[in-house]
Amino acid sequence: MSKLIDDNRKKKFQNFKRSELAERLGRVARICNDFSIPILIIVDGWESSGRGYVIKDLTREFAAKNYDVEVFDKDEREDNLYPFIRKFWINTPKKGHIKIFDRSFYYKLFEKKNFDGKKLKKRIDSIKSIEKALYDDQTIILKFFLNVDKEEQKKRIEKLEDSVKEDFYLDGLDWDQQENYKEYEKHFSKMLEMTDLSYSPWDIIDANDKKSASKEVLGLAIDKITQGIERVIRQREENENVERDYRLRSNILQAIDLSKAISDEDYEEKKNKLQKEVAEIMYKYYEKGISQVIVFEGVDAAGKDGAIERLIKEVDPRLFEVHGISAPSKEELDHNYLWRFYKKLPKDGYVGIFSRSWYGRVMVERVEGFAKVNEWDRAYDEILDMEKQIYDHGSLILKFFVMIDKDEQLKRFKDRQREPDKQYKITDEDWRNRKKWDQYIESMNEMLERTNVDYAPWIIVEGNQKKYARIKVMQEYIKHAKEHLKKLDK
Amino acid sequence: MSKLIDDNRKKKFQNFKRSELAERLGRVARICNDFSIPILIIVDGWESSGRGYVIKDLTREFAAKNYDVEVFDKDEREDNLYPFIRKFWINTPKKGHIKIFDRSFYYKLFEKKNFDGKKLKKRIDSIKSIEKALYDDQTIILKFFLNVDKEEQKKRIEKLEDSVKEDFYLDGLDWDQQENYKEYEKHFSKMLEMTDLSYSPWDIIDANDKKSASKEVLGLAIDKITQGIERVIRQREENENVERDYRLRSNILQAIDLSKAISDEDYEEKKNKLQKEVAEIMYKYYEKGISQVIVFEGVDAAGKDGAIERLIKEVDPRLFEVHGISAPSKEELDHNYLWRFYKKLPKDGYVGIFSRSWYGRVMVERVEGFAKVNEWDRAYDEILDMEKQIYDHGSLILKFFVMIDKDEQLKRFKDRQREPDKQYKITDEDWRNRKKWDQYIESMNEMLERTNVDYAPWIIVEGNQKKYARIKVMQEYIKHAKEHLKKLDK
Repeated sequence: MSKLIDDNRKKKFQNFKRSELAERLGRVARICNDFSIPILIIVDGWESSGRGYVIKDLTREFAAKNYDVEVFDKDEREDNLYPFIRKFWINTPKKGHIKIFDRSFYYKLFEKKNFDGKKLKKRIDSIKSIEKALYDDQTIILKFFLNVDKEEQKKRIEKLEDSVKEDFYLDGLDWDQQENYKEYEKHFSKMLEMTDLSYSPWDIIDANDKKSASKEVLGLAIDKITQGIERVIRQREENENVERDYRLRSNILQAIDLSKAISDEDYEEKKNKLQKEVAEIMYKYYEKGISQVIVFEGVDAAGKDGAIERLIKEVDPRLFEVHGISAPSKEELDHNYLWRFYKKLPKDGYVGIFSRSWYGRVMVERVEGFAKVNEWDRAYDEILDMEKQIYDHGSLILKFFVMIDKDEQLKRFKDRQREPDKQYKITDEDWRNRKKWDQYIESMNEMLERTNVDYAPWIIVEGNQKKYARIKVMQEYIKHAKEHLKKLDK
Repeated sequence: MSKLIDDNRKKKFQNFKRSELAERLGRVARICNDFSIPILIIVDGWESSGRGYVIKDLTREFAAKNYDVEVFDKDEREDNLYPFIRKFWINTPKKGHIKIFDRSFYYKLFEKKNFDGKKLKKRIDSIKSIEKALYDDQTIILKFFLNVDKEEQKKRIEKLEDSVKEDFYLDGLDWDQQENYKEYEKHFSKMLEMTDLSYSPWDIIDANDKKSASKEVLGLAIDKITQGIERVIRQREENENVERDYRLRSNILQAIDLSKAISDEDYEEKKNKLQKEVAEIMYKYYEKGISQVIVFEGVDAAGKDGAIERLIKEVDPRLFEVHGISAPSKEELDHNYLWRFYKKLPKDGYVGIFSRSWYGRVMVERVEGFAKVNEWDRAYDEILDMEKQIYDHGSLILKFFVMIDKDEQLKRFKDRQREPDKQYKITDEDWRNRKKWDQYIESMNEMLERTNVDYAPWIIVEGNQKKYARIKVMQEYIKHAKEHLKKLDK
């Protein structure tokens, strides 16, 4: 491990006082606050390597309201009911704020039980995807690993054992690392190497001397945040002038047969049976502790909510929650666009149904210009990353796209305006969107083309006849949900 | 128990079809949505009394996006780290939405271990205070208790035992109630009587026949929500024309001696020692698992944030979080004003520091007219109720009011405008507020007079000299924090 330490760099900061460095750091942090730039600082390392000491120095001159320290060193029962990366996502810093992670998602890589775990590869992918998404979204990310050698660690553990504060600062892990130092060291080096990313590199700190380590961390933080500010400002300017060259391979939505229909008798005959079957399957998922994420997208007035209500008609209402997604709130806008969806993911055994979803990023935000070209262009990958996390957790993820043609939409808009009960469902915005029909269809086609994957497939639903659409949603749900259970049983 | 059942009422709804009642209920729910009225429906009762069946019928015609069912039947470890009522507060319905509580805070009264518990009285007070606050804030509250007799319960339990769904629907409590039916019945009757409140009465439902029970619940829900809508609309009109007659008993803020000061040497000598002691005490609270809530209020530029930063200077940053409270977000405005603060309460062992707080309700919201007269007038009691919950949980709650005079404020405003680093701290709003100095002082005096209680005292800090104020905050914190620990040890 010690070969990863940069001695020259270490010397660079030793002539300064810690208080002086902390003050300078406070000043660059204030600039980030002025520019609404979020900062994520990860402080990880050996047990008893002095993370608390370093964090105390880091925060010394931060405005108290602008930072927050989160400790991640074990899983609560609740954490395990969601995809692993969720609890980190929902704790990411908002614009202009600083989050310090005392340990972080990395503790899941550093655990002994995971030394040869099959999950390692997936975990690393998850970590890369969250760091990449935050970096691209103008977050400054710093990662420090505090290294102590075996003798120093031993001394500290023994000293802590005599101290009154031992229960906060010591746990079984300390002695375990001490006893298996070599083994841990090898594993840490490997993990650090695999997660030393161009957009979020590690800084390995020699922490055998606490003060010197703290100076190095402070100095590096000043340098790197300063560079980060420059990078973010450059990035903001570049965002304005991006061109892209994507050619649609197909026009999926133009090609579908919207005339599909069923008879009233057929509908009545099938409906009840299917609804009961959906309820049975959702209960089975509950029993097995498997969560489900079901997304509904489509043009305005396509009948998404009607289809959702038929789908869940017979399901125990304690098992699901329907999220109607509209424009993000101020707090949501202050975070990455995926943040609000990570917060809404269902627990194991439960069903989260999204009426509109994260795909707004590549539809309404694209068409209306709320997201910059490169922001929505990279969102296809970010979205697939998130869906992969959900799938890898064992969940079912299904996406329905309900389509109607332009004439049918006009008819429904007019119907809604006539019916007092439904007037609230039609707004000026709907009419405005309608004028951009072709642009929306183009964005939808690209979305369907780029995000239709095995682990989270799109199911296109021909919606001109509502009854046909509703039956198809139920049938397709049942088919996919059963297949997923079978796959998991293997 | 059966004497609590109203046979005439029960008959009233039996001639309707359930689907018909559900449709009517769906319509009144839609009106609540139009009028932004929140609805809370509590469905409690014996085990195996058919709560799920009733809830399914209740939700049948609700728009899927507008309601949500929460199940409360046990405590997670996490829940016990906060005041008991918190998890219900953070789950209260927002405007225009419906929350159904499958069980609720009442399960804490109905538990056998609490039959003679000392906590019963406090729990009942907590429940009364949340129901009162929600009712006054225009929420429609329905409470149903499903009653089954001993034989019927036995039949159902036996039937469920043979069913595939038993693990969702059965637990040890079912048989325990069956075996101690009389004892439970007596306790339930007592609890129901004690919590049958004028603003949130119970409806006891004969649930020996599921369909009949469901019809009665649906029918009552229609009637009561309809009445509730009328009540809320009347209430909104009355809110416009309230007069009140409160006479200040004293002018606390005018009477304090703002000339208090200490010398620079004195400050330097005391500061470090006090900061270390604060850190020691906060760590002791951590070890003992006791949370702390520390509120800072004061006129603009009084030095609240400076005092906070000195207070926590030496404290491990993992132990506290500082919440800078500004105007509420849309989501927060859609809930009761206390909702956002219940969400921010610290866990056992941790410290939540509020720079501005819920007292905004009786200061800025009062003076600027954001809250109606009767809204802020009743807030004094609501706030004390919340602080009582925190105190009863064992937490320390302290409130600092930092005061400066009008001249000193002007000087600080001007200083801030001159210093580039501090310009962000002074806004047009500050100048506007300054014009209403007398109104603010009046509201502050009333606040200090009405909310200075033993369990959550106000500490007035003379702030014209910053150094004096900072030392006083630390000294008073130490004094009160030590006393609280001593009290708990007894």
